[in-house]
Amino acid sequence: MHKVTVNLDKRSYDIKIEKGLLAAMGKEARKLSKAGKAAIITDANVDSLYGAKLQKTLEESDFIVERIVIEPGEKSKTLQTLGDVYARMAAFGLTRSDLVITFGGGVPGDLGGFAAATFLRGIDFIQVPTSLLAQIDSSVGGKVAIDLPTGKNLVGSFYQPLGVLIDPDLLTSLPKRYLHDGLAEAIKYGCIRSADLFAKLQGIKDDEELLANIEVIIKECCEIKARIVENDEFDTGERMVLNFGHTIGHAVEKYYNYETYTHGEGVGIGMVALTGKTEQLGITEKGSTTLIKDVLQHYGLPTEAVMEKEEVLKTIALDKKKKGGEITIVILEKIGKSRLLKIPYKDLTHYIG
Amino acid sequence: MHKVTVNLDKRSYDIKIEKGLLAAMGKEARKLSKAGKAAIITDANVDSLYGAKLQKTLEESDFIVERIVIEPGEKSKTLQTLGDVYARMAAFGLTRSDLVITFGGGVPGDLGGFAAATFLRGIDFIQVPTSLLAQIDSSVGGKVAIDLPTGKNLVGSFYQPLGVLIDPDLLTSLPKRYLHDGLAEAIKYGCIRSADLFAKLQGIKDDEELLANIEVIIKECCEIKARIVENDEFDTGERMVLNFGHTIGHAVEKYYNYETYTHGEGVGIGMVALTGKTEQLGITEKGSTTLIKDVLQHYGLPTEAVMEKEEVLKTIALDKKKKGGEITIVILEKIGKSRLLKIPYKDLTHYIG
Repeated sequence: MHKVTVNLDKRSYDIKIEKGLLAAMGKEARKLSKAGKAAIITDANVDSLYGAKLQKTLEESDFIVERIVIEPGEKSKTLQTLGDVYARMAAFGLTRSDLVITFGGGVPGDLGGFAAATFLRGIDFIQVPTSLLAQIDSSVGGKVAIDLPTGKNLVGSFYQPLGVLIDPDLLTSLPKRYLHDGLAEAIKYGCIRSADLFAKLQGIKDDEELLANIEVIIKECCEIKARIVENDEFDTGERMVLNFGHTIGHAVEKYYNYETYTHGEGVGIGMVALTGKTEQLGITEKGSTTLIKDVLQHYGLPTEAVMEKEEVLKTIALDKKKKGGEITIVILEKIGKSRLLKIPYKDLTHYIG
Repeated sequence: MHKVTVNLDKRSYDIKIEKGLLAAMGKEARKLSKAGKAAIITDANVDSLYGAKLQKTLEESDFIVERIVIEPGEKSKTLQTLGDVYARMAAFGLTRSDLVITFGGGVPGDLGGFAAATFLRGIDFIQVPTSLLAQIDSSVGGKVAIDLPTGKNLVGSFYQPLGVLIDPDLLTSLPKRYLHDGLAEAIKYGCIRSADLFAKLQGIKDDEELLANIEVIIKECCEIKARIVENDEFDTGERMVLNFGHTIGHAVEKYYNYETYTHGEGVGIGMVALTGKTEQLGITEKGSTTLIKDVLQHYGLPTEAVMEKEEVLKTIALDKKKKGGEITIVILEKIGKSRLLKIPYKDLTHYIG
């Protein structure tokens, strides 16, 4: 088993990563909580594959279990679904000493985590992420949220879990596109913090070799994220480097109505577009853009999208990362080294290809 | 001006109490925040009396102001109204460096505070309470919430304001019933922590004398609450003493569908019912119940409600203060001295008259 500790004083917790961990999750959850009841918040896809197994292992460790199942997909990350989930939690009789287990990709993790953060002003929860994107990114660091009609993740909390339990075996049932979607975030970690991780991702031959090495890749990504979150839990500084490629990426996702590009695909497109420009401006080491493009293509990820520059700017204007008249963007000096650059919002046009 | 500081490390803040403070709130808010925009969350009653005045003083201190007005009353403390408020905040273009000002009684304070706690994962807010209940209780301590159909305050956060600005002059427009409603909580503070405050409340002749002394009464109540919150910000121990009379009180309010008794009236009824019983059991000093009854009656507050014991127990069973198989109740040793008593839930029947 690999273990990564997120050090946040009283809110510190461990991320445990092990193939086959699903069968032991009851015992792991019992180490973390004395709860009588555990509510699993999951989506219909994950529930049909693994819901009964998770329930069984929890019951074997004497939890009374209820599975709260939402529809899969970003369209469920709404206030309305949240209301349905609250109603189920209340009907199940969850108290402040009970437990929520979020089980799935980013949507059950974000919405379920926000439900845990706010029901009875916060009850304990454990993240059990099942997609690669969730295992290396969204389940770590305590950001939970729902969407508003005007934008993604506009309502949420910083609320740390009791622990994150990761079983990489669950990735074998993931459609290939979503496995690669998650890799875009792994490539991002390489870009911003680790030339070694970047090189490792360049060197992997195929999906078989990828899955054989996935435990270590997940661990390295979680390590990078944990160190950044420790320095900036509430996202007022360093944590913004995690948004490398995201400002443009979110705009692309949104412009195409979240139907054409996945989150990771948007991020890949954003990293290439921004770095192409900063390389031209002499801020980023020559050749970096080609390196990023090549590794994205190696995993079948898109590297550009057709979108008018004006549309990109208009969509970014609604983004919550804008702060007063300024916006902070994340730029690479070279692969493995990034920094924040605060620019007047009106200058953003120079950084968009 | 009276000032009470709530000491919570980085989240410390001041409660400022002064007659006529409304006219200076722009300047006070500017001392606390560099925000460009300020969204006032208020209800239609308060807005029609004071909304334009608050907007003017904020604009004079260079805030761009939007008034978000909800319908008055507990029926607005829903997920649906919250969704409407979020939509207005998004349309106004609030960013993470902007400000929310909650302006009103418990409903705008609780719902608006929860909106501030969760919009963009939390933006700064200032509480400007306008009812006596809000000025001495709900605006202090960072508990914000909305109701679910199954119960009050079932969804919320612990989220401290930047400051609390109290203008006791606003109480002059409060219907007499709601002025006295707030006094029930002042009587509660006397019961649990201060025989002096209790005696002061006994000695006041009429509403005129009450309003003449209200600044000091508010200050003393806020002092008591601040010290308790400092010791137990997240409501896992000492803070529960603030619930004296509330377990039965909530049940009474709920049983009558929140239409017959105000919150303070419910609390008064709860204090009398519980103390009557603990006095019989020899836990509370003889005569305490009569003292509480007399001071409640002095302010025209009810001291009992017609309700079957079984119904009280059934309603309490849904209360969030139940934790596992146990419930913590707050009992008086004598006026001015309280303690927590954790009992098996099944024994609760002995403590209900």
